[in-house]
Amino acid sequence: MDKSNVIEFISKQKTAFIGSVNEDGFPVIRAMLAPRKIDNNDIYFTTNTSSNKIKQFTENDKSCLYFYKRGLFKYQGVCITGKMEVCLDQNTKNEIWRTGDKIYYKQGVTDPDYCVLKFTCISAEYYCDLKKETVSF
Amino acid sequence: MDKSNVIEFISKQKTAFIGSVNEDGFPVIRAMLAPRKIDNNDIYFTTNTSSNKIKQFTENDKSCLYFYKRGLFKYQGVCITGKMEVCLDQNTKNEIWRTGDKIYYKQGVTDPDYCVLKFTCISAEYYCDLKKETVSF
Repeated sequence: MDKSNVIEFISKQKTAFIGSVNEDGFPVIRAMLAPRKIDNNDIYFTTNTSSNKIKQFTENDKSCLYFYKRGLFKYQGVCITGKMEVCLDQNTKNEIWRTGDKIYYKQGVTDPDYCVLKFTCISAEYYCDLKKETVSF
Repeated sequence: MDKSNVIEFISKQKTAFIGSVNEDGFPVIRAMLAPRKIDNNDIYFTTNTSSNKIKQFTENDKSCLYFYKRGLFKYQGVCITGKMEVCLDQNTKNEIWRTGDKIYYKQGVTDPDYCVLKFTCISAEYYCDLKKETVSF
C-alpha cells in the first residue's frame, strides 16, 4: 500500500470516523459523511460550526481519520493521523459547498453554522486482516 | 436514552471502534470485534499483547469506544469515554477465553500474546440523526 492506494480506498467508503482529543485528554470518536473533497494530503469535510468537535479542534488540532471495509472474507481498515483545521473563511466555504447542503444550513453558503474541516494527513496505518503496514504521506 | 438503552444498543453491533491517545498526543482509532462481555460499567475485549494499542493503553489509559448503526432512514451512534485497563492476569484471561480463540492464539489460554482489555465507562454521547444526548454511567 502506498499513499495513492490509501486515497483510492478511502474514496470508496461512505462513512468516515474522526478522532479528536477533548479538554480532559480523552479521545473522542464521531462518524461523519464521506469526505467532500480530497486534494493531495488534504481531506475536507462539512460540519456545524456549533458542534462540540469544532471547539475541540480549535483547542487541539491533533486528529485522526478511520475508514474501513468489512468484506465477506477480508477486513480492511486505515487510520490516518494528522492535523485538523477549522475553516471559517468564505472562500473555502464557497469551494466546498454543494446545493443540497441547504437542507442542513437554511441560510445557505453564508450560514454561520456551516463550516469546513480540513484534515492534513501525516501518516497512516493500513490493516488488512491481521497484517499492518505503515504508509507515509 | 439511559445507560441500559446504551448497553442494549452496543450489544447488537458487530464492530466496536476503540480510541486511544498515542505517545505524541494524537488520537488513534482501531476497529475491534464486538465486546466479549459487558458487566455493568465494564466492557471486555480480547486482543494481542504485542499490539501497538497495548503499549498506548499502558502509558495512557484514557480511551473511548464508538458503536454505530446506519439504518435505511436513521443513523445512530454512541461514543463512550472511559478508562482502559490491560488485563494480563490469568484469572481474567480464563474468564474471557472461548474455545475458538485458539485460531488466533496457538498456545491457548496461557498464550503470552493473548490478553484482555477492560474498558470502564464514564459517560456517553448518543447521536441519533442530528440530535445528541449525554448519558451518565
